[in-house]
Amino acid sequence: MKIAVMGGDGFIGWPTSLHLSDAGHEVHILDNLSRRWIDTELGVQSLTPMDSIQERTRIWHAETGRRTHFNLIDLAKDYELLKKWLAEHRPDAIVHFAEQRAAPYSMKSDRHKNYTVNNNVNATHNLLNALVELNLDAHLVHLGTMGVYGYSTIGAAIPEGYLPVGIETTDGRTVSQEILYPANPGSIYHMTKCLDQLLFQFYAKNDGLRITDLHQGIVWGTHTQQTRRHEQLINRFDYDGDYGTVLNRFLIQAAIGYPLTVHGTGGQTRAFIHIQDSVRCIELALKNPPARGARVEIFNQMTETHRVRDLADMIAKMSGAEVVRLPNPRKEAPENELIVKNDKFLGLGLAPITLEAGLLNEIVDVAKKYAYRVDRSRVPAVSAWTKDLAATVNHDPEGKRLKSVS
Amino acid sequence: MKIAVMGGDGFIGWPTSLHLSDAGHEVHILDNLSRRWIDTELGVQSLTPMDSIQERTRIWHAETGRRTHFNLIDLAKDYELLKKWLAEHRPDAIVHFAEQRAAPYSMKSDRHKNYTVNNNVNATHNLLNALVELNLDAHLVHLGTMGVYGYSTIGAAIPEGYLPVGIETTDGRTVSQEILYPANPGSIYHMTKCLDQLLFQFYAKNDGLRITDLHQGIVWGTHTQQTRRHEQLINRFDYDGDYGTVLNRFLIQAAIGYPLTVHGTGGQTRAFIHIQDSVRCIELALKNPPARGARVEIFNQMTETHRVRDLADMIAKMSGAEVVRLPNPRKEAPENELIVKNDKFLGLGLAPITLEAGLLNEIVDVAKKYAYRVDRSRVPAVSAWTKDLAATVNHDPEGKRLKSVS
Ligand SMILES: NC(=O)c1ccc[n+]([C@@H]2O[C@H](COP(=O)([O-])OP(=O)(O)OC[C@H]3O[C@@H](n4cnc5c(N)ncnc54)[C@H](O)[C@@H]3O)[C@@H](O)[C@H]2O)c1
Ligand SMILES: NC(=O)c1ccc[n+]([C@@H]2O[C@H](COP(=O)([O-])OP(=O)(O)OC[C@H]3O[C@@H](n4cnc5c(N)ncnc54)[C@H](O)[C@@H]3O)[C@@H](O)[C@H]2O)c1
Repeated sequence: MKIAVMGGDGFIGWPTSLHLSDAGHEVHILDNLSRRWIDTELGVQSLTPMDSIQERTRIWHAETGRRTHFNLIDLAKDYELLKKWLAEHRPDAIVHFAEQRAAPYSMKSDRHKNYTVNNNVNATHNLLNALVELNLDAHLVHLGTMGVYGYSTIGAAIPEGYLPVGIETTDGRTVSQEILYPANPGSIYHMTKCLDQLLFQFYAKNDGLRITDLHQGIVWGTHTQQTRRHEQLINRFDYDGDYGTVLNRFLIQAAIGYPLTVHGTGGQTRAFIHIQDSVRCIELALKNPPARGARVEIFNQMTETHRVRDLADMIAKMSGAEVVRLPNPRKEAPENELIVKNDKFLGLGLAPITLEAGLLNEIVDVAKKYAYRVDRSRVPAVSAWTKDLAATVNHDPEGKRLKSVS
Repeated sequence: MKIAVMGGDGFIGWPTSLHLSDAGHEVHILDNLSRRWIDTELGVQSLTPMDSIQERTRIWHAETGRRTHFNLIDLAKDYELLKKWLAEHRPDAIVHFAEQRAAPYSMKSDRHKNYTVNNNVNATHNLLNALVELNLDAHLVHLGTMGVYGYSTIGAAIPEGYLPVGIETTDGRTVSQEILYPANPGSIYHMTKCLDQLLFQFYAKNDGLRITDLHQGIVWGTHTQQTRRHEQLINRFDYDGDYGTVLNRFLIQAAIGYPLTVHGTGGQTRAFIHIQDSVRCIELALKNPPARGARVEIFNQMTETHRVRDLADMIAKMSGAEVVRLPNPRKEAPENELIVKNDKFLGLGLAPITLEAGLLNEIVDVAKKYAYRVDRSRVPAVSAWTKDLAATVNHDPEGKRLKSVS
């Protein structure tokens, strides 16, 4: 297949591109490199030393003889360029990662809120709009998030996208309907993924586009079979307070001998998936497109759930680190249950890598190995969800308070 | 109250501004005049001769001694300007009309789709974002549409925004929940109003903004008590295929002796409200804001429903016009039921003006009076929902086919 990977320079996009290239597909990466610019804006960098996309694709070619083609295109701003590229290449499938993906970054300031809404809505809408305009029947696989469900308190297991409900009719009967799971996003970033869902629903219904939306958990792990093949093919590893997910920040704290910082009670349950499983799922989704005219296909792309404090304990046990508590900068329920269905990918043959089995490698092979590159002042999460919360959160740019605790 | 009317130069915004000014409020109009520019783009004009906004506000002042202040600001593009204006004026309430509001226009081409998504999402989001940033507790009243419900086939009466459903829990019980009515928009325009809903939900939850969303039916009628006070205060009247609603186009066809063109079977049921009732509803909504921290308040702002073919028959009877059928350029079910709850506004004292009672005036006082200004070639609706439909729709820019029928 000819596959366009939108956002193919990113954390998941890069290993996905290599995985698909390795499987024999013709891979084209479209990316505006905004993620690299945001590193510059925030004054942070990947823990792993990451080469330019041009250099990485050169090395992949040298290693394997396979080419991945890079195109600098902004999906949100360059509609005409995007359309021209699609018209010329007419890919069979498109994987769409090209969005601003950090919840804390999306809540930093009014500018960051506007940027996230604008970038994400327009990237997705431009893509859909161009497909219709060009009459291009490419299967679109989008990376959504478990966060569209909003870690809801409905009390039912979270289904794969569609919720069966009973509705009382005017004549007193109760009819069953499957509805798109009611959106309850917890940040501007998560909200943009809910907006995406409505865009997908409309374009599938009105124009018969074939769309798969993957509601993904937090991706952990660094290496895949392909990124391991050469030092310079290594994937990015974000550990800063905005882009570093809770797990990565625990790993770094463990590696540099800091206590693991749990926000609030640590009672929030989150869903996880390893990067190797994530790229496998994307391949499985590509192999199983919905029919033209069908509703949007939705998979839950996650393999296990954990409470944040249990994760901290798990890593503390493996590494000998301590655990401390800090005020939570997020506006969210202190404790939540999370039961998630993921039967579809399991049914397609996914055999998950577990945190229990893979975490130690991450501590040793990645966090400890590159610990010399850590900028300690960047680990704390400081972006607060509201101005009130900002006042209560511990702003500790120097990591002083943590040092004294440890 | 100090009230900002966003989009106050438009069809509903203008009479709302006068109505609120007349009631003693301090009214500030913010508008980018894009609607006038779109008239220029499409080569159409209001049936009624409409003065510039500057001239209209001057005449209102001369007539009544009251000032309405006009500010040329683009809500979608000028975030910093908008924020500055809000910071300086700190209004008590905001009425938000400032969106591209024609479904056919939103489906004209890829450029029009992008414009509509961009303009509407950013106008709404910029407004919400600025309110939070400025810590401004103004009550926001937004004009949504009945179209967010998507003339759904769920079989239940359409509630005011929230649908009670039964959800089966993991342990086999059924719990009742009220959810935002599942969105099922029929055009890009309607979809943007569904996106707005999610933005409102998030900002009400995360930041405690006080928001009222009015899910409005098709507004008919031209005059209100205030616009009648001077010839040059007259409201706009759109009859072209993009901005003219079905009713206005019937009125014009009747006035110029054309047959009334019904699309498809005319079996689509639509909801209606008179412009005078619309401005009264907005005033009622302003008087009854939700509490800070409450969920978004939603009203259905409509007073009666009719099938399109029944409307045509009603106007044919009053005017002696014929009725003809044309292919439908919209992708929609040929027939639908529509039972809508509007108890909230009735409970607040709304006494609706009925089509039966008001239509004849529209034919005589407006459509016939200004019939000499009609551009006949602009009456047919030609924007098609998909490329397939475009091929089947009767493109009849000269109105030739209609002439031969009549
Ligand atoms: N990382 C996770 O844990 C996780 C979890 C759930 C969902 N997701 C989703 O998966 C996708 C990829 O996530 P990631 O972790 O690889 O993020 P990332 O930020 O590392 O990668 C996103 C890539 O998209 C590019 N991009 C952003 N906006 C663009 C635009 N307008 N035009 C062109 N390129 C643009 C960026 O430059 C970057 O290379 C995102 O959509 C994200 O929301 C990620
Ligand atoms: N007319 C109806 O039948 C009807 C029915 C349901 C809902 N509504 C909603 O009510 C609102 C008003 O409708 P209308 O019929 O008066 O439409 P309109 O087009 O006559 O008025 C909208 C006004 O907003 C302005 N505007 C648009 N984008 C703007 C921006 N980015 N910045 C500043 N100003 C901007 C336009 O210039 C125009 O004056 C719309 O949101 C519409 O969706 C209308």
